[in-house]
Amino acid sequence: MHAILKQALDYSAILLTLKYVLNHEAVFQAIADPTRRRIVERLTRGPASVSELAKPLGISLAAVVQHLQLLESSGLVRTEKVGRVRSCQLDPAGLRTAEEWLHRQRTTWERRLDRLGDELADEKGKP
Amino acid sequence: MHAILKQALDYSAILLTLKYVLNHEAVFQAIADPTRRRIVERLTRGPASVSELAKPLGISLAAVVQHLQLLESSGLVRTEKVGRVRSCQLDPAGLRTAEEWLHRQRTTWERRLDRLGDELADEKGKP
Repeated sequence: MHAILKQALDYSAILLTLKYVLNHEAVFQAIADPTRRRIVERLTRGPASVSELAKPLGISLAAVVQHLQLLESSGLVRTEKVGRVRSCQLDPAGLRTAEEWLHRQRTTWERRLDRLGDELADEKGKP
Repeated sequence: MHAILKQALDYSAILLTLKYVLNHEAVFQAIADPTRRRIVERLTRGPASVSELAKPLGISLAAVVQHLQLLESSGLVRTEKVGRVRSCQLDPAGLRTAEEWLHRQRTTWERRLDRLGDELADEKGKP
Protein backbone atom coordinates (compact mmCIF):
# COMPACT_ATOMS: atom_id res chain seq x y z
CA MET A 1 0.00 0.00 0.00
CA HIS A 2 2.79 2.34 1.03
CA ALA A 3 4.69 1.68 -2.22
CA ILE A 4 1.58 2.30 -4.30
CA LEU A 5 0.95 5.60 -2.51
CA LYS A 6 4.55 6.67 -3.06
CA GLN A 7 4.31 5.78 -6.73
CA ALA A 8 1.07 7.75 -7.07
CA LEU A 9 2.71 10.79 -5.42
CA ASP A 10 5.77 10.53 -7.68
CA TYR A 11 3.47 10.27 -10.67
CA SER A 12 1.46 13.35 -9.70
CA ALA A 13 4.69 15.31 -9.08
CA ILE A 14 5.85 14.45 -12.61
CA LEU A 15 2.46 15.48 -14.02
CA LEU A 16 2.58 18.80 -12.14
CA THR A 17 6.11 19.54 -13.41
CA LEU A 18 5.07 18.62 -16.93
CA LYS A 19 1.99 20.84 -16.68
CA TYR A 20 4.17 23.75 -15.49
CA VAL A 21 6.67 23.32 -18.33
CA LEU A 22 3.94 22.96 -20.96
CA ASN A 23 2.03 25.95 -19.62
CA HIS A 24 5.23 28.00 -19.58
CA GLU A 25 5.90 27.05 -23.20
CA ALA A 26 2.29 27.78 -24.25
CA VAL A 27 2.26 31.24 -22.63
CA PHE A 28 5.39 32.34 -24.50
CA GLN A 29 3.98 30.95 -27.76
CA ALA A 30 0.70 32.77 -27.12
CA ILE A 31 2.19 36.21 -26.46
CA ALA A 32 4.68 36.00 -29.34
CA ASP A 33 1.83 36.92 -31.69
CA PRO A 34 0.95 40.66 -31.89
CA THR A 35 -2.80 40.03 -32.45
CA ARG A 36 -2.97 37.85 -29.34
CA ARG A 37 -1.11 40.52 -27.35
CA ARG A 38 -3.74 43.06 -28.50
CA ILE A 39 -6.50 40.69 -27.32
CA VAL A 40 -4.78 40.44 -23.91
CA GLU A 41 -4.42 44.25 -23.76
CA ARG A 42 -8.14 44.66 -24.57
CA LEU A 43 -9.13 42.13 -21.88
CA THR A 44 -7.25 44.01 -19.14
CA ARG A 45 -10.04 46.62 -19.47
CA GLY A 46 -12.73 44.00 -18.74
CA PRO A 47 -14.43 40.89 -20.14
CA ALA A 48 -15.51 40.93 -23.79
CA SER A 49 -17.47 38.80 -26.24
CA VAL A 50 -15.83 37.29 -29.34
CA SER A 51 -17.41 39.91 -31.63
CA GLU A 52 -16.34 42.76 -29.32
CA LEU A 53 -12.78 41.44 -29.60
CA ALA A 54 -12.97 41.02 -33.40
CA LYS A 55 -14.25 44.55 -34.19
CA PRO A 56 -11.21 46.76 -33.34
CA LEU A 57 -8.82 44.13 -34.70
CA GLY A 58 -10.56 44.07 -38.10
CA ILE A 59 -10.34 40.27 -38.33
CA SER A 60 -12.99 37.55 -38.73
CA LEU A 61 -14.79 35.90 -35.81
CA ALA A 62 -13.24 32.57 -36.86
CA ALA A 63 -9.74 34.08 -36.60
CA VAL A 64 -10.49 35.46 -33.12
CA VAL A 65 -11.83 32.06 -32.01
CA GLN A 66 -8.56 30.42 -33.15
CA HIS A 67 -6.47 32.97 -31.23
CA LEU A 68 -8.72 32.48 -28.19
CA GLN A 69 -8.23 28.70 -28.26
CA LEU A 70 -4.46 29.23 -28.01
CA LEU A 71 -4.84 31.86 -25.30
CA GLU A 72 -7.19 29.59 -23.35
CA SER A 73 -4.99 26.49 -23.57
CA SER A 74 -2.01 28.57 -22.37
CA GLY A 75 -3.94 29.68 -19.28
CA LEU A 76 -3.92 33.38 -20.22
CA VAL A 77 -7.66 33.65 -20.91
CA ARG A 78 -10.81 31.94 -19.63
CA THR A 79 -13.97 31.80 -21.73
CA GLU A 80 -17.49 30.96 -20.66
CA LYS A 81 -20.67 30.57 -22.67
CA VAL A 82 -23.47 32.75 -21.28
CA GLY A 83 -26.62 32.03 -23.29
CA ARG A 84 -25.57 32.40 -26.91
CA VAL A 85 -22.60 34.65 -26.21
CA ARG A 86 -19.07 33.49 -25.34
CA SER A 87 -17.60 35.81 -22.73
CA CYS A 88 -13.81 36.05 -22.46
CA GLN A 89 -11.80 37.25 -19.51
CA LEU A 90 -8.16 37.42 -18.52
CA ASP A 91 -6.63 34.84 -16.19
CA PRO A 92 -3.69 36.53 -14.43
CA ALA A 93 -2.08 33.15 -13.57
CA GLY A 94 -0.77 32.76 -17.13
CA LEU A 95 0.69 36.28 -17.20
CA ARG A 96 2.34 35.68 -13.83
CA THR A 97 4.02 32.48 -15.11
CA ALA A 98 5.76 34.33 -17.95
CA GLU A 99 6.52 37.37 -15.79
CA GLU A 100 8.20 35.17 -13.16
CA TRP A 101 10.44 33.45 -15.69
CA LEU A 102 11.64 36.80 -17.07
CA HIS A 103 12.08 38.24 -13.58
CA ARG A 104 14.12 35.23 -12.44
CA GLN A 105 16.48 35.49 -15.43
CA ARG A 106 17.00 39.22 -15.00
CA THR A 107 17.57 39.18 -11.24
CA THR A 108 19.90 36.13 -11.38
CA TRP A 109 22.05 38.05 -13.87
CA GLU A 110 21.89 41.34 -11.96
CA ARG A 111 22.84 39.63 -8.69
CA ARG A 112 25.81 38.07 -10.47
CA LEU A 113 26.93 41.53 -11.67
CA ASP A 114 26.56 42.90 -8.13
CA ARG A 115 28.73 40.08 -6.72
CA LEU A 116 31.38 40.77 -9.37
CA GLY A 117 31.33 44.46 -8.43
CA ASP A 118 31.83 43.58 -4.74
CA GLU A 119 34.70 41.22 -5.54
CA LEU A 120 36.42 43.90 -7.63
CA ALA A 121 36.01 46.43 -4.81
CA ASP A 122 37.49 43.90 -2.32
CA GLU A 123 40.47 43.29 -4.62
CA LYS A 124 41.06 47.05 -4.82
CA GLY A 125 41.01 47.36 -1.02
CA LYS A 126 43.75 44.73 -0.59
CA PRO A 127 47.29 45.94 0.11
CA MET B 1 14.72 76.98 -38.99
CA HIS B 2 12.22 76.52 -36.16
CA ALA B 3 9.92 74.44 -38.39
CA ILE B 4 12.81 72.24 -39.52
CA LEU B 5 13.85 71.64 -35.91
CA LYS B 6 10.28 70.75 -34.95
CA GLN B 7 10.06 68.36 -37.88
CA ALA B 8 13.35 66.73 -36.89
CA LEU B 9 12.11 66.29 -33.30
CA ASP B 10 8.81 64.78 -34.52
CA TYR B 11 10.76 62.46 -36.76
CA SER B 12 13.04 61.26 -33.96
CA ALA B 13 10.02 60.74 -31.67
CA ILE B 14 8.44 58.51 -34.34
CA LEU B 15 11.71 56.59 -34.73
CA LEU B 16 11.98 56.09 -30.96
CA THR B 17 8.39 54.80 -30.73
CA LEU B 18 8.99 52.53 -33.70
CA LYS B 19 12.20 51.22 -32.10
CA TYR B 20 10.31 50.50 -28.85
CA VAL B 21 7.50 48.63 -30.66
CA LEU B 22 9.93 46.65 -32.82
CA ASN B 23 12.12 45.77 -29.82
CA HIS B 24 9.06 44.69 -27.87
CA GLU B 25 7.98 42.50 -30.77
CA ALA B 26 11.48 41.06 -31.21
CA VAL B 27 11.84 40.14 -27.51
CA PHE B 28 8.59 38.16 -27.50
CA GLN B 29 9.59 36.42 -30.74
CA ALA B 30 13.00 35.62 -29.26
CA ILE B 31 11.76 34.06 -26.02
CA ALA B 32 8.97 32.07 -27.73
CA ASP B 33 11.62 29.52 -28.76
CA PRO B 34 12.66 26.98 -26.06
CA THR B 35 16.29 26.75 -27.29
CA ARG B 36 16.66 30.53 -27.07
CA ARG B 37 15.16 30.49 -23.57
CA ARG B 38 17.76 27.88 -22.58
CA ILE B 39 20.51 30.15 -23.97
CA VAL B 40 19.14 33.03 -21.87
CA GLU B 41 18.99 30.77 -18.78
CA ARG B 42 22.61 29.72 -19.36
CA LEU B 43 23.75 33.34 -19.74
CA THR B 44 22.26 34.38 -16.39
CA ARG B 45 25.11 32.35 -14.84
CA GLY B 46 27.74 34.43 -16.70
CA PRO B 47 29.15 35.20 -20.17
CA ALA B 48 29.84 32.29 -22.52
CA SER B 49 31.42 31.63 -25.90
CA VAL B 50 29.41 30.25 -28.83
CA SER B 51 30.88 26.75 -28.36
CA GLU B 52 30.19 26.80 -24.61
CA LEU B 53 26.56 27.58 -25.45
CA ALA B 54 26.33 24.90 -28.16
CA LYS B 55 27.71 22.00 -26.04
CA PRO B 56 24.88 21.41 -23.49
CA LEU B 57 22.24 22.13 -26.15
CA GLY B 58 23.62 19.46 -28.46
CA ILE B 59 23.19 21.67 -31.55
CA SER B 60 25.66 22.94 -34.17
CA LEU B 61 27.65 26.16 -33.81
CA ALA B 62 25.84 27.50 -36.89
CA ALA B 63 22.46 26.93 -35.21
CA VAL B 64 23.63 28.73 -32.04
CA VAL B 65 24.89 31.66 -34.14
CA GLN B 66 21.46 31.95 -35.78
CA HIS B 67 19.71 31.97 -32.39
CA LEU B 68 22.24 34.51 -31.11
CA GLN B 69 21.55 36.85 -34.03
CA LEU B 70 17.85 36.89 -33.09
CA LEU B 71 18.65 37.33 -29.40
CA GLU B 72 21.08 40.16 -30.20
CA SER B 73 18.70 42.05 -32.51
CA SER B 74 15.96 41.83 -29.85
CA GLY B 75 18.25 43.44 -27.27
CA LEU B 76 18.33 40.37 -24.98
CA VAL B 77 21.98 39.50 -25.58
CA ARG B 78 25.16 41.39 -26.43
CA THR B 79 28.07 39.70 -28.18
CA GLU B 80 31.64 40.88 -28.53
CA LYS B 81 34.58 39.41 -30.40
CA VAL B 82 37.61 38.99 -28.15
CA GLY B 83 40.48 37.73 -30.29
CA ARG B 84 39.09 34.72 -32.13
CA VAL B 85 36.31 34.00 -29.62
CA ARG B 86 32.84 35.57 -29.64
CA SER B 87 31.78 36.22 -26.05
CA CYS B 88 28.04 36.46 -25.30
CA GLN B 89 26.41 38.11 -22.33
CA LEU B 90 22.90 38.95 -21.21
CA ASP B 91 21.50 42.46 -21.61
CA PRO B 92 18.86 42.90 -18.90
CA ALA B 93 17.17 45.77 -20.84
CA GLY B 94 15.47 43.32 -23.19
CA LEU B 95 14.20 41.13 -20.36
CA ARG B 96 12.88 44.21 -18.58
CA THR B 97 10.90 45.30 -21.69
CA ALA B 98 8.98 42.02 -21.83
CA GLU B 99 8.59 41.84 -18.05
CA GLU B 100 7.09 45.35 -17.96
CA TRP B 101 4.52 44.56 -20.64
CA LEU B 102 3.35 41.44 -18.76
CA HIS B 103 3.34 43.26 -15.44
CA ARG B 104 1.29 46.14 -16.87
CA GLN B 105 -1.36 43.77 -18.28
CA ARG B 106 -1.63 41.79 -15.05
CA THR B 107 -1.82 44.76 -12.69
CA THR B 108 -4.30 46.66 -14.90
CA TRP B 109 -6.59 43.63 -14.74
CA GLU B 110 -6.08 43.04 -11.01
CA ARG B 111 -6.75 46.73 -10.21
CA ARG B 112 -9.98 46.44 -12.22
CA LEU B 113 -11.04 43.40 -10.15
CA ASP B 114 -10.23 45.29 -6.92
CA ARG B 115 -12.37 48.25 -8.03
CA LEU B 116 -15.25 45.89 -8.86
CA GLY B 117 -14.91 44.31 -5.41
CA ASP B 118 -15.06 47.75 -3.74
CA GLU B 119 -18.12 48.73 -5.76
CA LEU B 120 -19.90 45.51 -4.79
CA ALA B 121 -19.05 46.09 -1.11
CA ASP B 122 -20.41 49.69 -1.36
CA GLU B 123 -23.63 48.42 -2.94
CA LYS B 124 -24.05 45.93 -0.09
CA GLY B 125 -23.54 48.66 2.50
CA LYS B 126 -26.35 50.81 1.04
CA PRO B 127 -29.71 50.76 2.82
